[in-house]
Amino acid sequence: MNIILLSGGSGKRLWPLSNDVRSKQFIKIFKNDAGEYESMVQRMYRSIKKIDSDANVTIATSKAQVSAIHNQLGDPNVGISIEPSRRDTFPAIALAAAYLHDVQHVSEEEAVVVCPVDPYVEDDYFEALKTLGEQASKGEANLVLMGIEPTYPSEKYGYIIPTSTDKFSVVSTFKEKPDEETAKQYIKQGALWNAGVFAFKLKFVLDAARELLAYTDYEDLFNRYSSLEKISFDYAVVEKEKKIQVMRFKGEWRDLGTWNALTDAMNENVVGEGLMNEKCQGVHILNELNIPVLAMGLNDVVISASPEGILVADKEQSALIKPYVDSMHQQVMFAEKSWGNFQVLDVEDQSMTIKVTLSPGHSMNYHSHMHRDEVWIVLSGEGTTTVDGMEQNISVGDVITMQSGCRHTVKAVTELKMIEVQLGKDITAQDKQKYSLE
Amino acid sequence: MNIILLSGGSGKRLWPLSNDVRSKQFIKIFKNDAGEYESMVQRMYRSIKKIDSDANVTIATSKAQVSAIHNQLGDPNVGISIEPSRRDTFPAIALAAAYLHDVQHVSEEEAVVVCPVDPYVEDDYFEALKTLGEQASKGEANLVLMGIEPTYPSEKYGYIIPTSTDKFSVVSTFKEKPDEETAKQYIKQGALWNAGVFAFKLKFVLDAARELLAYTDYEDLFNRYSSLEKISFDYAVVEKEKKIQVMRFKGEWRDLGTWNALTDAMNENVVGEGLMNEKCQGVHILNELNIPVLAMGLNDVVISASPEGILVADKEQSALIKPYVDSMHQQVMFAEKSWGNFQVLDVEDQSMTIKVTLSPGHSMNYHSHMHRDEVWIVLSGEGTTTVDGMEQNISVGDVITMQSGCRHTVKAVTELKMIEVQLGKDITAQDKQKYSLE
Repeated sequence: MNIILLSGGSGKRLWPLSNDVRSKQFIKIFKNDAGEYESMVQRMYRSIKKIDSDANVTIATSKAQVSAIHNQLGDPNVGISIEPSRRDTFPAIALAAAYLHDVQHVSEEEAVVVCPVDPYVEDDYFEALKTLGEQASKGEANLVLMGIEPTYPSEKYGYIIPTSTDKFSVVSTFKEKPDEETAKQYIKQGALWNAGVFAFKLKFVLDAARELLAYTDYEDLFNRYSSLEKISFDYAVVEKEKKIQVMRFKGEWRDLGTWNALTDAMNENVVGEGLMNEKCQGVHILNELNIPVLAMGLNDVVISASPEGILVADKEQSALIKPYVDSMHQQVMFAEKSWGNFQVLDVEDQSMTIKVTLSPGHSMNYHSHMHRDEVWIVLSGEGTTTVDGMEQNISVGDVITMQSGCRHTVKAVTELKMIEVQLGKDITAQDKQKYSLE
Repeated sequence: MNIILLSGGSGKRLWPLSNDVRSKQFIKIFKNDAGEYESMVQRMYRSIKKIDSDANVTIATSKAQVSAIHNQLGDPNVGISIEPSRRDTFPAIALAAAYLHDVQHVSEEEAVVVCPVDPYVEDDYFEALKTLGEQASKGEANLVLMGIEPTYPSEKYGYIIPTSTDKFSVVSTFKEKPDEETAKQYIKQGALWNAGVFAFKLKFVLDAARELLAYTDYEDLFNRYSSLEKISFDYAVVEKEKKIQVMRFKGEWRDLGTWNALTDAMNENVVGEGLMNEKCQGVHILNELNIPVLAMGLNDVVISASPEGILVADKEQSALIKPYVDSMHQQVMFAEKSWGNFQVLDVEDQSMTIKVTLSPGHSMNYHSHMHRDEVWIVLSGEGTTTVDGMEQNISVGDVITMQSGCRHTVKAVTELKMIEVQLGKDITAQDKQKYSLE
């Protein structure tokens, strides 16, 4: 099975656990059978591999997420189609399709399944994805959509009206997001939710890209990407296609776009250090800080704390969070990187103190700063620093000082934790020159 | 005016802003006329000095609070009577009285006013304290109590029944904390709240101490303090005294022992970084962290965040906080010291990272650790370190490494901020040997 996972935007609606560099799909809140917490991306990837260990998975995403994906999946073979900018779903799917064909050399006759990375689903969903791909392979239709059997008259989804109640059915028509009354009418007619999940033969989307985007090859499309028109796959392709089928899906499928929906899918009320008294009802605590949260006498409230901030919200009200988060314009306090992660511990006028954790075998870029000195103190682990070309082995207690202008990097042998103190009048993320390390 | 301020216990009911080393009276939440935040102790001390700039103030407190008092009041002349352990109010007041007589050489004929440090009051209260002391000087009674005119039939206070409605009146009888109905009856009889505020001639309490505690002098009492019986001043003295008056007080007087009462006395809804949407009503945010708090759709909730933890509580429920805080047994993450303060930034298995701020002219003890190495990195300011007897001037960017066993201290010339990284297998507050610095 070839599968393209669409890993979307910054997910401010789940602040403070998601931000510009860490989207909701990377928050570790679902306990797996081994008792470990995993993120939406990890859960989805693990589930796909469980159903089909040979699945060829490509994640279509932005550059900002690449580090987090590598770090969380730990599989060097996962395909990543990097979108140079955000251009909506048709350019994203076309680029990923071109990547499959021109980079991974997947045949134009093979079926490809596309689905978002963030719904909350069970194993039957992944079986259904496989069936969806097999149906596309048959060539009865150019496009096979998954239609979710509605559980309530939602105003959040588009609807697909099928011509029959069979498992596979020709699509009669599509309906935009309706109001609740209209949704009830649609459901009476046997309508299904359009979950943005579909399968096609690779050739079908490449042909559409040739026609609409003047696609020649992956490299060409990648280079022109930022100038492409923003257009959705639904609008550019689905709604114009005649040979189109829908496959019913009756299993668990939940969109976890708000705190209300996300906490509803959690199998525990407290993740991280948290305590609540017996007068709390419907309260969820998600705490990434190393200090305890105590909740008393609250109803239907989500409390979420991370190095970015603290949210305390009535669950229904939490859906309205976005403008407030937009207004905060804050510094990134925590980020996952391909080499590990960093956390801001302290910010002063002319200094910043962070904790850096490098994964074994990984190193940061060889780089220098114009406007700040830095000091590293090793807390634990072993590694090798390179400072202006000089290599040195480091371990716990070692102190490395780097003046501005000095080139430096560190490679972890075992997991390496360090305190980094940055000192200067103008400390910015932009003040960084990268070099290659011979 | 001689005044003894009773600065009480650890105030867990206002967690996480108060803890074993920082009690509620040190939380800076009241904005003064200059727009600066001040604590209960600062507010009370400033107000006393405003009414009577010559007031001789002695604070009766535990050793744990001495640093915070010096740091917050910044007045080297403030008297401090240190209780070696907690023995209730009679031993505490007797010790403070002995301190006044034997250390400060206050005459036995002078009047002394005693009051708790933590009620929320206005200027008229301090005028009343002065009047109370003047009345005690007259010698009409051995003890003059302040009686607060009740604003509601409270079950939290004892009541004083006066024999008249005059400003000064002989006390008819005392009543224990009643239920609401009984309180209503008392109030009909003209009863007043017993606020634990009273005045006497120093001799009166010293005589009581001679009789009940076999008081000889301050040093003797101090040395025997921990073996003294725990007994309240009310029980030991007030309830047995015949020559006793009460003075009515009608002004603002509020006990700020719970989050509900404390937030009610605040003149702002948000202290620190905080934001709330328009659906929040009766919400208070007190945030000492350097990350924002966002509140949405909450009613009558207090959100309080500090390096110790995060409380989110219905205001009424917050009165029940104590057992939950007792169950947490957590590490002290922030403390004010006589020399400045420290904040724990990060805790790992074998390391701890803290930020240390020293006030100009101050230094920490000259000390060493058996089981940990330490590294200092100067963030800002200037100072002088002494490491194994060697002095060195330090400024921003300097790094000082100290092996276990090495004696070290630092003195701030200007305000000095440093990151201190502690490294070792057994990092505890107890691992500290102090030395004198020649």
